[in-house]
Amino acid sequence: MTLFYSDAEVSAALDAATTVDAMRAALLAAYDGRLAAPPRASASLDGGRMVLTAGHLIGEWYGYRSYDTFGHPESQQLVVLHDGRTGAVRAVAVGEELGSRRTGGLGGVAVDVLARPDAATVGVIGSGRQAWTQVWATAAVRPVREVTVYSRSAARREAFAARVRTELGIAARPVDDPATAVAGRDVVVLATTSPTTVVDAADISPGTHVNAVGFKQRDRAEFGPDLLAAADVLATDSPAQAGAYTPPMLAAEPPHAERLRDLGAVLAGAEPGRTDPEQISVFCSVGLGGTEVFLLDRLVRVGATTV
Amino acid sequence: MTLFYSDAEVSAALDAATTVDAMRAALLAAYDGRLAAPPRASASLDGGRMVLTAGHLIGEWYGYRSYDTFGHPESQQLVVLHDGRTGAVRAVAVGEELGSRRTGGLGGVAVDVLARPDAATVGVIGSGRQAWTQVWATAAVRPVREVTVYSRSAARREAFAARVRTELGIAARPVDDPATAVAGRDVVVLATTSPTTVVDAADISPGTHVNAVGFKQRDRAEFGPDLLAAADVLATDSPAQAGAYTPPMLAAEPPHAERLRDLGAVLAGAEPGRTDPEQISVFCSVGLGGTEVFLLDRLVRVGATTV
Repeated sequence: MTLFYSDAEVSAALDAATTVDAMRAALLAAYDGRLAAPPRASASLDGGRMVLTAGHLIGEWYGYRSYDTFGHPESQQLVVLHDGRTGAVRAVAVGEELGSRRTGGLGGVAVDVLARPDAATVGVIGSGRQAWTQVWATAAVRPVREVTVYSRSAARREAFAARVRTELGIAARPVDDPATAVAGRDVVVLATTSPTTVVDAADISPGTHVNAVGFKQRDRAEFGPDLLAAADVLATDSPAQAGAYTPPMLAAEPPHAERLRDLGAVLAGAEPGRTDPEQISVFCSVGLGGTEVFLLDRLVRVGATTV
Repeated sequence: MTLFYSDAEVSAALDAATTVDAMRAALLAAYDGRLAAPPRASASLDGGRMVLTAGHLIGEWYGYRSYDTFGHPESQQLVVLHDGRTGAVRAVAVGEELGSRRTGGLGGVAVDVLARPDAATVGVIGSGRQAWTQVWATAAVRPVREVTVYSRSAARREAFAARVRTELGIAARPVDDPATAVAGRDVVVLATTSPTTVVDAADISPGTHVNAVGFKQRDRAEFGPDLLAAADVLATDSPAQAGAYTPPMLAAEPPHAERLRDLGAVLAGAEPGRTDPEQISVFCSVGLGGTEVFLLDRLVRVGATTV
């Protein structure tokens, strides 16, 4: 019997602590070589592509996420989980919620591993779905007491701050420029759709951890090389995926590539993370392949609603 | 709101006449260039591949079928239908029923287009899901009055004949050798999993139409080149797909390739079909890409049950 999940059902069943815990397990499985995640496959259709990113937790399950590049207004993704022993389809999730919670969960692990233990303030640039799940997951790993948020739309940044207050019970205020949003913050989230710099390294205080979720490529990035140069610790959830971007990811090019660490390796204790409270750490989020399926498996295990 | 279909729901909602009608429309759309169906895409996982066959009916919908090559006992396929204007996922079907009905429906169109108008007897070799849907669809396009069936398992051929009697209300009898099953039949269905010849051209009577559903490649075929040589009319549902098999499809190699017709072209009247009652016609079924999604769209339109 296949279980089906809509966005509403994913939201109701998957809390931030569970999500971060699942992504911690996924990063360790990938580091151990138990989570296979091949390059994406795609089929060209007239006007767009259908894309599949697959994953296989050896001995447990396999599956994929599908999405398309038509750019339709209500385009929905699908995540599919097969039982690894029988091949049966155990669950299907339709929508955006599982994917953005997945990305939030990976960001939560990054904060947990790399931010100062006493981190309590968060500055956000961006007010969309991705910005939200980063804050949602961060609040599950640190005792956050204040969030500041900037986005170009005053209405959207106000709504975002209100949502933080209502849903997370955390003080939050919109601010009217990006530098103010990140000044003196323990954790900074960059989650815009901007192809150009929204923040300068000079705006980031010593001791800050940054989760970079938006564009981070050569000639298309929400931050400049100055931020990478200022970072004492650089990590990503998939060095392999980071190295395969076109155009190249800034952190995967010289002189940064050689010090870009695998978050899974840091988590496993095989590579160092932050070693000083004054260091700046930057997490370049790429969305480790197979993690949407990993999270769907976790959702099934926590025993969610069936339609 | 996404609609979900299990095998039971597909079976309940999709009758043979509707299915054949949908496949007729799909073949015409492909012939007209309105149905885009690119080569399959796949991602290698440890121990198997996840495969996607996509389709796009320009201006209407796009989507895909997914399946895997792990060879698990209860492996299930997925068919996904996106709205072509909004990108929303309109429907998802999980299981085997939609795919085998799709193949049956294409076979039904082939019988309708290529068999004699008075064809009334059907001989089947094979007793599985694919054999069943070929007979099921054939009965929707011709007034079938008797079915003979051979398969290696006596129990399975008896069960198949009983199912034909019960579900289709048609006289049916199991026979204990393949030549007897096809002797003097108006329509012959080859739907085995055999990699070697199960029938000789000499066993096929003049005037017969053959639907070949199983293996049909060089060194891996349920019939030999003699059947192609005996055929006056050769057709397939996708000349492009027929030409892309590895190892090559017998009908797509010389000397047959140049006379292998597109069933859609015959349907559209652009190429001739049967021109004499004594001719032998052979349909090489390849499963035109995008037709599973086409059929799911039709299923949604006929207003099926929602889970």
